[in-house]
Amino acid sequence: MENFNFYAPTYFAFGKDAEAQTGSLVKRFGGTRVMLHFGGGSVIRSGLLDRVKKSLDAEGITYVELGGVKPNPRSGLVYEGIELCRKENIDFILAVGGGSTIDSSKAIAAGAVYDGDFWDYYEGKPVDKALPIGTVLTIAAAGSEGSPDSVITKEEGMIKRGASGEAYRPKFSVLNPALTQTLPAYQTACGITDIIAHLYERYLTNTKDVEVTDRMIEALILAMVNEGPKVIANPDDYEARANIMWGGMMAHNNSCGVGRTQDWTSHNVEHELSALYDCAHGAGLAVAMPAVFTYTMRHDVMRFAKIAVRVWGCQMDFDNPERTAKAGIEALRNFLISIGMPKNFSELGAKAEDIEQLAHTCCYGNGNTSGILYGFTELKQKDVEEIYKLMM
Amino acid sequence: MENFNFYAPTYFAFGKDAEAQTGSLVKRFGGTRVMLHFGGGSVIRSGLLDRVKKSLDAEGITYVELGGVKPNPRSGLVYEGIELCRKENIDFILAVGGGSTIDSSKAIAAGAVYDGDFWDYYEGKPVDKALPIGTVLTIAAAGSEGSPDSVITKEEGMIKRGASGEAYRPKFSVLNPALTQTLPAYQTACGITDIIAHLYERYLTNTKDVEVTDRMIEALILAMVNEGPKVIANPDDYEARANIMWGGMMAHNNSCGVGRTQDWTSHNVEHELSALYDCAHGAGLAVAMPAVFTYTMRHDVMRFAKIAVRVWGCQMDFDNPERTAKAGIEALRNFLISIGMPKNFSELGAKAEDIEQLAHTCCYGNGNTSGILYGFTELKQKDVEEIYKLMM
Repeated sequence: MENFNFYAPTYFAFGKDAEAQTGSLVKRFGGTRVMLHFGGGSVIRSGLLDRVKKSLDAEGITYVELGGVKPNPRSGLVYEGIELCRKENIDFILAVGGGSTIDSSKAIAAGAVYDGDFWDYYEGKPVDKALPIGTVLTIAAAGSEGSPDSVITKEEGMIKRGASGEAYRPKFSVLNPALTQTLPAYQTACGITDIIAHLYERYLTNTKDVEVTDRMIEALILAMVNEGPKVIANPDDYEARANIMWGGMMAHNNSCGVGRTQDWTSHNVEHELSALYDCAHGAGLAVAMPAVFTYTMRHDVMRFAKIAVRVWGCQMDFDNPERTAKAGIEALRNFLISIGMPKNFSELGAKAEDIEQLAHTCCYGNGNTSGILYGFTELKQKDVEEIYKLMM
Repeated sequence: MENFNFYAPTYFAFGKDAEAQTGSLVKRFGGTRVMLHFGGGSVIRSGLLDRVKKSLDAEGITYVELGGVKPNPRSGLVYEGIELCRKENIDFILAVGGGSTIDSSKAIAAGAVYDGDFWDYYEGKPVDKALPIGTVLTIAAAGSEGSPDSVITKEEGMIKRGASGEAYRPKFSVLNPALTQTLPAYQTACGITDIIAHLYERYLTNTKDVEVTDRMIEALILAMVNEGPKVIANPDDYEARANIMWGGMMAHNNSCGVGRTQDWTSHNVEHELSALYDCAHGAGLAVAMPAVFTYTMRHDVMRFAKIAVRVWGCQMDFDNPERTAKAGIEALRNFLISIGMPKNFSELGAKAEDIEQLAHTCCYGNGNTSGILYGFTELKQKDVEEIYKLMM
């Protein structure tokens, strides 16, 4: 295991009606003048935004509102939010929504207290300073409610990049599984896929002797595989929603990813897809993961065989472990299809003629002059092109 | 799943030489005048205390020292520590040692800023205020380095009780697995047993639909069962030590125990043993657990069958699940014996003639006028006597 630091000081209020605690939590963490950040109409229609406002009112906390966050959140709204924060002397950002809203809130929180362009953080500058952030989560997926990460798409060139830093850990997150019961099945499945990707990408490590985190990752995937089909069959299954919501947070707060190298190839490969075609991130991952894993499997067949046996219940072929490894990838693919995810390029709306461009941006974007993606294996543009071809 | 709040804002510095960060961490969390609390000679002999002092010196942090913590830490030293803190205007308690030292530090931290008797907290008052605490851990066992809990023995009557509260979460914990390499095999095994108990006692729940935490608990036990024999065979196995150390923290920071009832019967039953005979806590648990589980198994046979299959690799007897449940308990017992733990009352130094007294204190101690232990099942004195008899 490698040396590491781990610090996850987010307060979680979990359960039915937990959003009623929002006002007191903002107060506890020092907020007096809040920017309420959200997406489209669903949080308004469901009455959630009103309940949150009521809870802020009860504590005498004032607020301004900024809606309009879209999936794959854009830099344009971030700049607007930063300006609003400065003009209104905002001291706390409250995200009401899913990963996109939270990620947009994080970007605004950093930009509001930074003299330069917030995009600097998305080009590699560690996020060391930001306004405090709280979240009221409406979908189990991104794990942003408990993570130090944020992903934003720059409209100029449609470049999707991540930033990370301690200041991005929310001060608190309100997790009420009932809020996710109104989600369409497709979005629910996208969320489950994203959670599984966060787990696989931690699993694919080159660090030896990481049994404890291996087992934790396997445990969380097993829970998703068990609970996922329940909510697809019955969207009102609160208990399954609750398991997925806590699992989604644990999958990405990194307690199961510490001290080991990780592999974010599937996310990197997917980001180009959702940036170019504006497909759902989870849907892109469902297509990307089996392709990436099939291409990189031979780098460590036994690791893929292990997850095949331990998670997917495959029989170990002791004479030919590669057969087991492949069976595990196939089981993952079939599971994702079973919950309604797309299985190939055309179902995503992606085009074969874009592959060279996708692979080039993936490898050379973000000022990466080497053109190499480092992770489980080293991948060059040619490799990434092959991976995209496997998705067709 | 039940509603819950979860807040674990402890900063972990993990890995080789991590103790060099101690001074800067004390500074980060506001300490200027520290009470260094530790046990016997081992932290002095190993040079660890000197390294910690050097790290404090480097940051210009002053300190006073209070050694002498014993296993099953006592109230006498706590009172001494409280007096010292007040006299010396201490603003930060730094524990260098294992669970006993950390628990003693927590009690001192609470008592130092409380007008009444610190023991009030150990009779049920929630710990809402305490001096900030940091730890440099020397044994993977109690999980106190990441938990809000502390257990102290009151010398008057040898009563062992726990206290809990947000203020008891350490601000930081330094986890260097190499520091545990010098531990005798017996203490190492006691630690592993304590960790497994923390997991089993969360597993034994009456809450339905807790797949995600069930799976996490199983994962952590599996990791202990895999890594434990490695360190018993080779005390210098840093990697196995590292897995056990992170697993021990995760086992008790409660991220795998949220939203579910828990069962602390084994700990309660054991506390009477270590209070009366001063045996090692882990050793007492090794004898107590199989007895408690055998006695309470019929309350939920399928839960015991599940852990038997998923953790211990037992075959499910679909015609007679109780046989599987029993096989799982037997596998646990055999595992504990295999790492060198005692298997019965006499190996612990416990006496049959004390059973009535043990069971009475267990049920009626701590001002419990009902005499009933609530947890996985309800147990009266007569039941607890039967449990102690099963240990003979």
